[in-house]
Amino acid sequence: MKVDLNSDLGESFGRYRLGLDDEVMNYITSANVATGWHAGDPVVMRKTVRLAKEKGVAVGAHPGYPDLLGFGRRYMRLTPEEARNYILYQIGALYAFTRAEGIELQHVKPHGALYNALVKEEELARAVIEGIADFDRNLIFVTLSGSRPAEIAEELGVKVAHEVFADRAYNPDGTLVPRSRPGAIIHDKEAIAERVISMVKNGGVRAINGEWVELKADTICVHGDNPEAVEIAKHIREVLEEEGVKVVPMGEIVR
Amino acid sequence: MKVDLNSDLGESFGRYRLGLDDEVMNYITSANVATGWHAGDPVVMRKTVRLAKEKGVAVGAHPGYPDLLGFGRRYMRLTPEEARNYILYQIGALYAFTRAEGIELQHVKPHGALYNALVKEEELARAVIEGIADFDRNLIFVTLSGSRPAEIAEELGVKVAHEVFADRAYNPDGTLVPRSRPGAIIHDKEAIAERVISMVKNGGVRAINGEWVELKADTICVHGDNPEAVEIAKHIREVLEEEGVKVVPMGEIVR
Amino acid sequence: MKVDLNSDLGESFGRYRLGLDDEVMNYITSANVATGWHAGDPVVMRKTVRLAKEKGVAVGAHPGYPDLLGFGRRYMRLTPEEARNYILYQIGALYAFTRAEGIELQHVKPHGALYNALVKEEELARAVIEGIADFDRNLIFVTLSGSRPAEIAEELGVKVAHEVFADRAYNPDGTLVPRSRPGAIIHDKEAIAERVISMVKNGGVRAINGEWVELKADTICVHGDNPEAVEIAKHIREVLEEEGVKVVPMGEIVR
Amino acid sequence: MKVDLNSDLGESFGRYRLGLDDEVMNYITSANVATGWHAGDPVVMRKTVRLAKEKGVAVGAHPGYPDLLGFGRRYMRLTPEEARNYILYQIGALYAFTRAEGIELQHVKPHGALYNALVKEEELARAVIEGIADFDRNLIFVTLSGSRPAEIAEELGVKVAHEVFADRAYNPDGTLVPRSRPGAIIHDKEAIAERVISMVKNGGVRAINGEWVELKADTICVHGDNPEAVEIAKHIREVLEEEGVKVVPMGEIVR
Repeated sequence: MKVDLNSDLGESFGRYRLGLDDEVMNYITSANVATGWHAGDPVVMRKTVRLAKEKGVAVGAHPGYPDLLGFGRRYMRLTPEEARNYILYQIGALYAFTRAEGIELQHVKPHGALYNALVKEEELARAVIEGIADFDRNLIFVTLSGSRPAEIAEELGVKVAHEVFADRAYNPDGTLVPRSRPGAIIHDKEAIAERVISMVKNGGVRAINGEWVELKADTICVHGDNPEAVEIAKHIREVLEEEGVKVVPMGEIVR
Repeated sequence: MKVDLNSDLGESFGRYRLGLDDEVMNYITSANVATGWHAGDPVVMRKTVRLAKEKGVAVGAHPGYPDLLGFGRRYMRLTPEEARNYILYQIGALYAFTRAEGIELQHVKPHGALYNALVKEEELARAVIEGIADFDRNLIFVTLSGSRPAEIAEELGVKVAHEVFADRAYNPDGTLVPRSRPGAIIHDKEAIAERVISMVKNGGVRAINGEWVELKADTICVHGDNPEAVEIAKHIREVLEEEGVKVVPMGEIVR
Repeated sequence: MKVDLNSDLGESFGRYRLGLDDEVMNYITSANVATGWHAGDPVVMRKTVRLAKEKGVAVGAHPGYPDLLGFGRRYMRLTPEEARNYILYQIGALYAFTRAEGIELQHVKPHGALYNALVKEEELARAVIEGIADFDRNLIFVTLSGSRPAEIAEELGVKVAHEVFADRAYNPDGTLVPRSRPGAIIHDKEAIAERVISMVKNGGVRAINGEWVELKADTICVHGDNPEAVEIAKHIREVLEEEGVKVVPMGEIVR
Repeated sequence: MKVDLNSDLGESFGRYRLGLDDEVMNYITSANVATGWHAGDPVVMRKTVRLAKEKGVAVGAHPGYPDLLGFGRRYMRLTPEEARNYILYQIGALYAFTRAEGIELQHVKPHGALYNALVKEEELARAVIEGIADFDRNLIFVTLSGSRPAEIAEELGVKVAHEVFADRAYNPDGTLVPRSRPGAIIHDKEAIAERVISMVKNGGVRAINGEWVELKADTICVHGDNPEAVEIAKHIREVLEEEGVKVVPMGEIVR
């Protein structure tokens, strides 16, 4: 039994610092590195890739909308041609740093509002996945567990990692309860760890209404933007290992 | 006897159109494709790389300062760390498109004010060349013929293409006469062609004061931003071929 | 009987040129000047305001989404707080140039996808109008004739100019037929002029299905991005004057 | 005896937080508010202006180079036309927020590398000051005490506030010792306070080599980017008041 722990990193920009990358890097197995559009810059990318290499953490691209001001968290309407080439550009940009540091580029996880838009807009999802395949069909596409983009990737012959969220409540249909709703975010460390174990070992979790939701969990999203988040990441890692689950990069899970 | 003809292409951005790429592509052998910082965007990059592929023109990256507003033509003070990683980022971004289209990335030619700054700032030149080497030591670095950056590249084991300018007057020391000086720009098609032949066949040209300047000419810079420029590019190509000079991508010249 | 002719101007950016501003300025009475977010830059803004002053054309701000790459033509999801302050910022930026040139700022017309979003999102419309009122309650807000934003502006005590489109087909409910539909764009100069006269003198026009649509026409949008568009603007102006309609800045119409 | 305390504020951007604005605002009399080019955004500008209003702190514009990535700390070569209009744009943008909040715009202090470039490039200084005068000749231009830009402003009839730095060593000619040199930055709270008192009461301070430098001190620059800086600002304020110096906005000093 294996699972990957992923986190968004390298989100600093110029003079602006964000995230406890050094710390959360100790507990994760895959790093989603921002590619300079919604966050990150070339100097930050270099440092982040180097840090991941030192810590033995696998690296993926974390491309987003061209919206630094909104941190890639605002929906933008893109044409498929735009989306496909925006993704390709950002993958290439990050690839340059993995190549410079002599490590592999493992995966691609779209960021923020783009991640969410893919789940709703099939044409957009197809464009993004084609952008990934344009670069390398062996890159793993990370998307919401059980979502339509996961199916499209399979149709297009692109590897998929099904992602679950440790600290988010689920609807019975497997979608996430929006952050604005009460109960959407789970703060308790033990509750989070229990849910993670349930997802990984039992293949699902209780939805917000108590129903059982089946979820494929190749990789679990954890956070590193504050000390509590890092503490939770650490705890999840420990509990998984205590339960006999191997925590490994998604490249050892998805083949 | 061989020489390459290069031109800056893919300088459109979003709604903004620039350059007669389709036309000048008929006469050149290497395209310097803008990488989205001073000009260009991912959709434009895709189209430009595809066009180059169709026309059999070799492709290089044309990275610039992060200054779309100034079109990369304004000097900016960068640290070596910034320069190295900015170049690496932009090379990777363009590489993604050449990889998607199944062609090679041949060279890197810094743009505008960055190109000029390299000639004056040795530390900056070193950083840029290290950025290129970080990606691939076989990429050809294009720089002003006979300049200090060319020497540094050789020291660092990076291939160099010595570039000459068909329509620019030279100082006796091999530097370009600044555009602001009278006589700096040569407009006459025949005069330009004659100078090109002199550079390629005689290894030099008369400086603005009549002295002889020795110049190594691996590649000649031509323009495509207006119909006259395209006409000049066409004429240079014809005259070179009439004179028995083979016009080939710089990758067949620099080894 | 009076009407205003408005056009989007000052859309050049840095090295990139767009629009025949010098020419269309001869036929219009109000200029919507881009404010540097979706198009335009400070040097262009200065020139455009100066040109409008010389030609006796009234000046308004033409704020857009923070999306130069998409030319402000792509929908972005903004919070009301963002929208209100983005508008305020852009109004102030343009105001600086009108103040420097000693002329009045007459109006505010949101650009592109933002203009369209206002018609659909009431909260967004309210935020934009509040942004205008924050600066000056006497600025005229330009919006789609008969739309909900026009009502909101009236509720908030902000002056409104109802805008009609000379070259666009209407649905029977007064909305524009989307550009993607056949017949959405009217190209014939005479047909356009006839529609304009109908809107101004008869208070409406035939919708795409033949039904009559009532339309209040304080200002007519014309274009200046190509020679044909300028020709149409000229023709509309001539026909209006032949028909005894006074063509004046919207500030003389909306009070 | 009067002096102003100024600080750079509103330097957050989108998701990125910077500076302890709420705290340092308690000790200063003039706030230099970033205008969105090197730092700041419209939402941040609104909040910062509102906060200054609540605290009774006077507001000025803090325009910078168009270089968010470099935080406006990198030299860029601008033409006078660019500089003049870039400044005007940014002043207008901030003015919109002071107008919305019903307060005055008091001053303009160029940021970072632009502030430094003015001292060295007379033509640039003239352009920036003309940009200020274009907007309002009563705005106070803040510049290095005793510098050439201060003279130019006087020639052009623009008000000047001579600025001194509490925590920086001076050369005997009144210029600042570059940050890279040992001893350039003074960290000791008491030493800083003593220097401030010397500048304000004795009209000068000891240079790094022990010589006496005369300095006009209309306004003292303090920082708010970390708790120590805020502590120093607080201490300077207290010591000034103990010494009977009135701490007031520069608008009450420069007339």
